[in-house]
Amino acid sequence: MYLFNDKINMLNVMKSNRFFCNSSLFLSVSCLRRYTSTRRSTIFALSSGTSRSAISVIRISGPNSVEVIRKMTRLNKENIIPRKALLRKIVDPNNGDLLDNGLVLWFPHPHSFTGEDSVELHVHGGIAVVSSIISALQKLPGFRIAEAGEFTKRAYLAGKLDATEVEGLADLLRAETETQRRQAIRQATGELAELYNKWRTSILTCMAHLEAYVDFGEDQDIGHEVLSSLQYAIQSLKSEVGSHLNDNRRGERLRNGVRVAIIGEPNVGKSSLINILSRRNVAIVSPYAGTTRDIVEISLDIGGYPIVLCDTAGLRHSVDPVENEGLRRAREAASTADLVIIVMDVLTGPAKLLQLSTKEMARLECERLNLSFNAEGNYLVLLNKLDLTSASVSINQSGVSALSCKTGQGLEEFLVDLEKKLAELCANPMQEAPLITSSRQRHHVQVAFRHLEKFLDIIEQQGDLALAGEQLRRSAKQIGSITARGKIDTEEMLDVLFRSFCIGK
Amino acid sequence: MYLFNDKINMLNVMKSNRFFCNSSLFLSVSCLRRYTSTRRSTIFALSSGTSRSAISVIRISGPNSVEVIRKMTRLNKENIIPRKALLRKIVDPNNGDLLDNGLVLWFPHPHSFTGEDSVELHVHGGIAVVSSIISALQKLPGFRIAEAGEFTKRAYLAGKLDATEVEGLADLLRAETETQRRQAIRQATGELAELYNKWRTSILTCMAHLEAYVDFGEDQDIGHEVLSSLQYAIQSLKSEVGSHLNDNRRGERLRNGVRVAIIGEPNVGKSSLINILSRRNVAIVSPYAGTTRDIVEISLDIGGYPIVLCDTAGLRHSVDPVENEGLRRAREAASTADLVIIVMDVLTGPAKLLQLSTKEMARLECERLNLSFNAEGNYLVLLNKLDLTSASVSINQSGVSALSCKTGQGLEEFLVDLEKKLAELCANPMQEAPLITSSRQRHHVQVAFRHLEKFLDIIEQQGDLALAGEQLRRSAKQIGSITARGKIDTEEMLDVLFRSFCIGK
Repeated sequence: MYLFNDKINMLNVMKSNRFFCNSSLFLSVSCLRRYTSTRRSTIFALSSGTSRSAISVIRISGPNSVEVIRKMTRLNKENIIPRKALLRKIVDPNNGDLLDNGLVLWFPHPHSFTGEDSVELHVHGGIAVVSSIISALQKLPGFRIAEAGEFTKRAYLAGKLDATEVEGLADLLRAETETQRRQAIRQATGELAELYNKWRTSILTCMAHLEAYVDFGEDQDIGHEVLSSLQYAIQSLKSEVGSHLNDNRRGERLRNGVRVAIIGEPNVGKSSLINILSRRNVAIVSPYAGTTRDIVEISLDIGGYPIVLCDTAGLRHSVDPVENEGLRRAREAASTADLVIIVMDVLTGPAKLLQLSTKEMARLECERLNLSFNAEGNYLVLLNKLDLTSASVSINQSGVSALSCKTGQGLEEFLVDLEKKLAELCANPMQEAPLITSSRQRHHVQVAFRHLEKFLDIIEQQGDLALAGEQLRRSAKQIGSITARGKIDTEEMLDVLFRSFCIGK
Repeated sequence: MYLFNDKINMLNVMKSNRFFCNSSLFLSVSCLRRYTSTRRSTIFALSSGTSRSAISVIRISGPNSVEVIRKMTRLNKENIIPRKALLRKIVDPNNGDLLDNGLVLWFPHPHSFTGEDSVELHVHGGIAVVSSIISALQKLPGFRIAEAGEFTKRAYLAGKLDATEVEGLADLLRAETETQRRQAIRQATGELAELYNKWRTSILTCMAHLEAYVDFGEDQDIGHEVLSSLQYAIQSLKSEVGSHLNDNRRGERLRNGVRVAIIGEPNVGKSSLINILSRRNVAIVSPYAGTTRDIVEISLDIGGYPIVLCDTAGLRHSVDPVENEGLRRAREAASTADLVIIVMDVLTGPAKLLQLSTKEMARLECERLNLSFNAEGNYLVLLNKLDLTSASVSINQSGVSALSCKTGQGLEEFLVDLEKKLAELCANPMQEAPLITSSRQRHHVQVAFRHLEKFLDIIEQQGDLALAGEQLRRSAKQIGSITARGKIDTEEMLDVLFRSFCIGK
């Protein structure tokens, strides 16, 4: 069921609340009952990596888990101690053939990841070893191989995790950079869930007060005060939700990687820039214009920030249809990127540009390249081929750097600029509230926000209080849908939630 | 030190034994002392697979292991229970930043894989998670990343494993088929070590008896009896060692994979055979003769037996130097293979051949293809393109099959023949003694065997008993070198033993 920070508040709310009897709570209870009453199979999978390694972990979860210990390690149930790693011979349950020596761990329910009885076998990480154990497990009655994400799904259905924590867990497994990991672990350990639960509890409290006011207070002196304090509470909640929405999509960007497009005239060294950044040859660099036709994408970790770097075709007019397709794609990449790096040749790039602001330089170069300029967009300007000039290039504005992709001169300074920009685009300092990280969350928060707005409008215009209460109810329901603790909304939503997991999680 | 099955025997041997005071035992003791007295670092590594997964296991071993628990999980030493999996927040030891939630396990020495204090962290299997934990561990004083095989090396040096068990463990991790796994687990759990220890103890016992005879018995009546029982014991040991050596290299073949060469005229369908066996396109098949020039090698699991299949160029005379190089390689592959599959066209292959034995058919086809025939070799004959003939092909001899690589007709029967042949070449039924699996083992067993022979020769010719005893000592030393328990022979031998391991083992 829903988790409240303040249990007394919740009870008050539930006792006095006519708006509360929406169907979702009852639906969730009945779904849970249906779910637990059907006899579940016991599932198993290789939960550690698939490459050859010292250790492989095979995880088993479900009502018959303990059969693994009885039949494959020949331990009596009374001899096993919960959570204690025992070194045992692991044998085939049918013929007793030795499969491996390994550790066996028993996690009795509910103190396991899934909340069910669980067992872990830690065996040698060879292909034949793992497959012999998987085959042996398949021989046990009621056992089957787990689907992708099925362990986590069971943990979710047992109320061990809410939907945001499930999303956080998926992000944690997928995290490739340090800042991604930080955001994911905060979400996986419930920071986002806590925020949404707090909001939901606030709304439910307001609903209870409104209810009480409707029942007893409308005619009394105290009435006006109650209503205005209600108004105040929702006003301040609305502004909190508003600034949560108005996060410049930093959380989602961090999660998915900042899309960075590198654009410029042919032969200014765009591909060389990618190569020097990635320190290996990913794009073919040649002195002939028009070399890069496809968009080359590469994921990089720049100071802990994940970026997806897109090399693009040099922007020039061409009669070659293939090349023109490349140009079209380059323009598209530039218009959808989170950050555009404009590369110019320090020799041919007009020196007078240097007097302008970064934005102004970007605007002029975009015009020259026949590229749409976005005043709200993020640009960095890079003057390449510093090695070819002996004149000193004086740069005063931040956002503009000079470097040589050939010698590496100026690279460090450019990386400092780039990291600063990336921090702006996706950082979330530890002391700040957690950010929205998925469009699913954003959708619900947006709808909840609009209902709060409508509530305030109705109160402002001294409209129907029942209608106003309905807005609060809808808002609370939307917020509740984000965490969706133990609640099966639809099969479809479950699929979306768990399909990104690998087998074994 | 050496392990004896019979401790009393060993003591008797040591007390009465003038031949025993060879330097190797003292060397091994002093090496061990030197090893344990130097302050060892605490090592750590990712021990589970490197691919994205639900669980990653990070293993820590060495004197400061427990610092991980104290500094990264903030548990007091008194609160941790040996081998119990505790769910903890895992934090950076310097700044306390949350890295992940995971299980922590403490394995106090000597009850750990390495025999040292060990800790395991079970964390989420994301790239960023694992790298944050590895970075955190590097901050702890006295900690460093383990080299490949270093955990096993420490287990070996602590006397937890002998050299054959180390080899078995390496084979277990590398095992790709079921029969390879079976052989490896038997060796890893000490079956081979037990055999060699038994032999060594027998020889040492004989040495003790010989010693006693020399000291007291030579002039007495009982003397002759002692000598002839000694002779009998060594004679029967020699025959046991002899049949161990005379194993047709089955163990080594199983370990490395059975090399199977497919040969035949151009266009008889050799590449199609590889494709149908591997059920995916690995060789380019085309109707033009001379398509296959390089040797295509592919590893397959046929009924649990590992084979390395070599497709070869069609054997015909050519003026193309590249093709001729292909022919030279094909001939070489055929002459070094463990099994040669001769493919013929059922239409053009002479029907009268069918009256001959498999060996005779192989000999004639080899002659025709200008290929050297090995009477001791293993051959299977395959008549392909069964789909092109409506006449029934009657085959009576085993080792000859007819099939159609195009339709798959006859494939099952051929696979039965192939598996039977593979079992002959590398199987070791469970009830049989363990087999030699490496050339290192074979070398020592061979030398030990020759010393036993020399001992018997000397006794036979009523030669010097001291010289005879020296032969036994040398034989025992060779057998001892195979298991080399806790004994550092040379750095070089250690390198050979551990270099095949992955990091984390």
